[in-house]
Amino acid sequence: MARIVQKYGGTSVGDVERIKKVAERVKATRDEGNELVVVVSARAGVTNELIARAKAVCAEPSERELDQLLSIGEQETCALTAMALHGLGVKAVSYTGAQAGIFTDKVHTKARIQTIDAKPIENDLKQGRVVIVAGFQGINEEGNVTTLGRGASDLSAVALSAALKADKCEIYTDVDGVYTADPRVVKNARKLAELSYDEMLELASSGSKVMQSRSVEFAKKFGVVFEVRSSFNHNPGTIVKEEVAYMEKVVVRGVAVDKDQVKVIVSNIVDKPGSAAKVFRALADATVMVDMIVQNVGRHGVANLTFTVPQTDTQRAVKALEPVLAEVGGGQVAVHENIAKLSVVGVGMKSHSGVAATLFQSLAAANINIELITTSEIKISVVVDRDRVDEAARVAHAAFGLDTL
Amino acid sequence: MARIVQKYGGTSVGDVERIKKVAERVKATRDEGNELVVVVSARAGVTNELIARAKAVCAEPSERELDQLLSIGEQETCALTAMALHGLGVKAVSYTGAQAGIFTDKVHTKARIQTIDAKPIENDLKQGRVVIVAGFQGINEEGNVTTLGRGASDLSAVALSAALKADKCEIYTDVDGVYTADPRVVKNARKLAELSYDEMLELASSGSKVMQSRSVEFAKKFGVVFEVRSSFNHNPGTIVKEEVAYMEKVVVRGVAVDKDQVKVIVSNIVDKPGSAAKVFRALADATVMVDMIVQNVGRHGVANLTFTVPQTDTQRAVKALEPVLAEVGGGQVAVHENIAKLSVVGVGMKSHSGVAATLFQSLAAANINIELITTSEIKISVVVDRDRVDEAARVAHAAFGLDTL
Repeated sequence: MARIVQKYGGTSVGDVERIKKVAERVKATRDEGNELVVVVSARAGVTNELIARAKAVCAEPSERELDQLLSIGEQETCALTAMALHGLGVKAVSYTGAQAGIFTDKVHTKARIQTIDAKPIENDLKQGRVVIVAGFQGINEEGNVTTLGRGASDLSAVALSAALKADKCEIYTDVDGVYTADPRVVKNARKLAELSYDEMLELASSGSKVMQSRSVEFAKKFGVVFEVRSSFNHNPGTIVKEEVAYMEKVVVRGVAVDKDQVKVIVSNIVDKPGSAAKVFRALADATVMVDMIVQNVGRHGVANLTFTVPQTDTQRAVKALEPVLAEVGGGQVAVHENIAKLSVVGVGMKSHSGVAATLFQSLAAANINIELITTSEIKISVVVDRDRVDEAARVAHAAFGLDTL
Repeated sequence: MARIVQKYGGTSVGDVERIKKVAERVKATRDEGNELVVVVSARAGVTNELIARAKAVCAEPSERELDQLLSIGEQETCALTAMALHGLGVKAVSYTGAQAGIFTDKVHTKARIQTIDAKPIENDLKQGRVVIVAGFQGINEEGNVTTLGRGASDLSAVALSAALKADKCEIYTDVDGVYTADPRVVKNARKLAELSYDEMLELASSGSKVMQSRSVEFAKKFGVVFEVRSSFNHNPGTIVKEEVAYMEKVVVRGVAVDKDQVKVIVSNIVDKPGSAAKVFRALADATVMVDMIVQNVGRHGVANLTFTVPQTDTQRAVKALEPVLAEVGGGQVAVHENIAKLSVVGVGMKSHSGVAATLFQSLAAANINIELITTSEIKISVVVDRDRVDEAARVAHAAFGLDTL
């Protein structure tokens, strides 16, 4: 007997037929004698529908009320999943985030989990019940409903795994696991059997939308080993855990593409201490998510700052920069929309030279121009023309031998 | 400055445009300097959609899970209404039943309110906020979500009015108030300016679907005066309160029709003490709502019991009677589907003779046959052929001078 936390995403519980399939899968796991906690997302599309309704009644809905509203999506699926299990003769009970004892801070729409009171769930497990928990949500000390940010049902599952000392955490989604590249772009992409937290993190933040970064960070922090797998078949997925020795043999584990970025160039600002700080402080205050940053000092004591931001943040970024330019004494802002980011990721990269060279060479051979470069311990990212990034992914995938590994 | 509780039903908050209209009306009341608590139902149709989804995953959904599921309908509208008020610059906060401190017993799907902790709402009102409360729901001592029964958002409003010692309670719906008869059937029907609780109760239980009986009983018990009015215009509605002296002048206040009944005849059962009790105990155990009851003792020590039940309870009633007939030693059950109930209601009836005579005479003159008769202090009900009940309503409405009153 093991204690297992399973999480089912929005497409896995997309309609009543899918919910019944999930119930069958849960029953099968339960019938093997396991204790089971199941975290569910809202039905695919529901959260966006609710946001659209909120925007229709109020241009800028309050975050407290948004949380109150959005939490109903998961409340619906958790009740329906419990009912579907009853229909199969399985004892089950559904919990909202509040009922599951998931206490968060007061930051609405992106609350952080502070504690989980596992007693109610422990009690139900002892009595042989499957516990279905509404993902993505918690409650703060004032009794207000909070949500944990888009995609944070994964976080609910990982945090519950830690709190309940689960033996396994299974993240069910609509893909088979984590691939060396997006199979829709790179047809030779292969599923990875194992991956380290850090690699998963770099892939997540590089545009692989399999899982939310925060959930992976949380899993790393609390040592929660989890498996990403599909609820649509019974194939083994990708197990994500601490880096292990044999991983060293492999240099590059995957290639990720992010087309949701634009490049912002702030040019000709006076190069004095604090100018760059003012720019990025203003962007942070406007909650613009800045990704890649490159600074060049030009001639005549002026500097150019180049960075990328998510497409949806573009207008907010430009607006936030206006007063800064006035304050630092001039400069221009330009936005290049037609770019995308390509990243190659791998723990092995730390101890191997030549990865950057291989990447740049392969792109040059395909005549693809590189506009920006940033590197981390286990990742190299480049910005290229958006129209050529899929080709760049295929070229890089082949150059690192991922097609045949 | 007054303290006002307003309740908006499902059609009043049927879509985002309607919710914005409600917000405008709430703002207008707030701008007059009033303290305001607003109770909202789910958008029209949502509760039925959720029930359909529940039945699609499980033939007999658990009531605890049904409550967990159904409560999201009101949670959605209360959050959206708060947002719409924010959009108009009005300070507002939304509460689920649990957040509003509405504590109930443990009976899921038809819980009874036990206490209301008014402190959180009082606190918000003091700070100038409009408080929007999800109707129809509460929480029990175990932290489970409960619902109060279909149509019970009215009850939430009346109970909050009592707990908050509100000066006014306004029930907004899609009709202008309570009429002397259904205006779709009786074209001369007129809106009543005032009505007593008892008259409202008899009208409600006689098929006038304006308001749920339990809410009226609760209002009577706690002396909550309320007004039924339309959210689609600004016409004055019908004020419901304790019987007042001048009401005595009027004998009959209204005519109600209920087409949702069938007649069940249990014939030839042995007429000994306890037979009837066994029949109605069995029906009660099967949660069949028995309405009119007539018993005739026939010859040879056998009795006939005739009663009416809601159409939807017919099969359950017939099934519940089978073991009883076996137990009491024989008898037959027959169901007559094609019937309807016509009621005339009025507090004045108590002290006036001749009401029954007038009713029977008017129906006889129209050649409408009466199959069953029951009377209460302030009501006479008759069962007639379903196809002729609308005509019967028009005839009775005219006979009591309601056309011209």
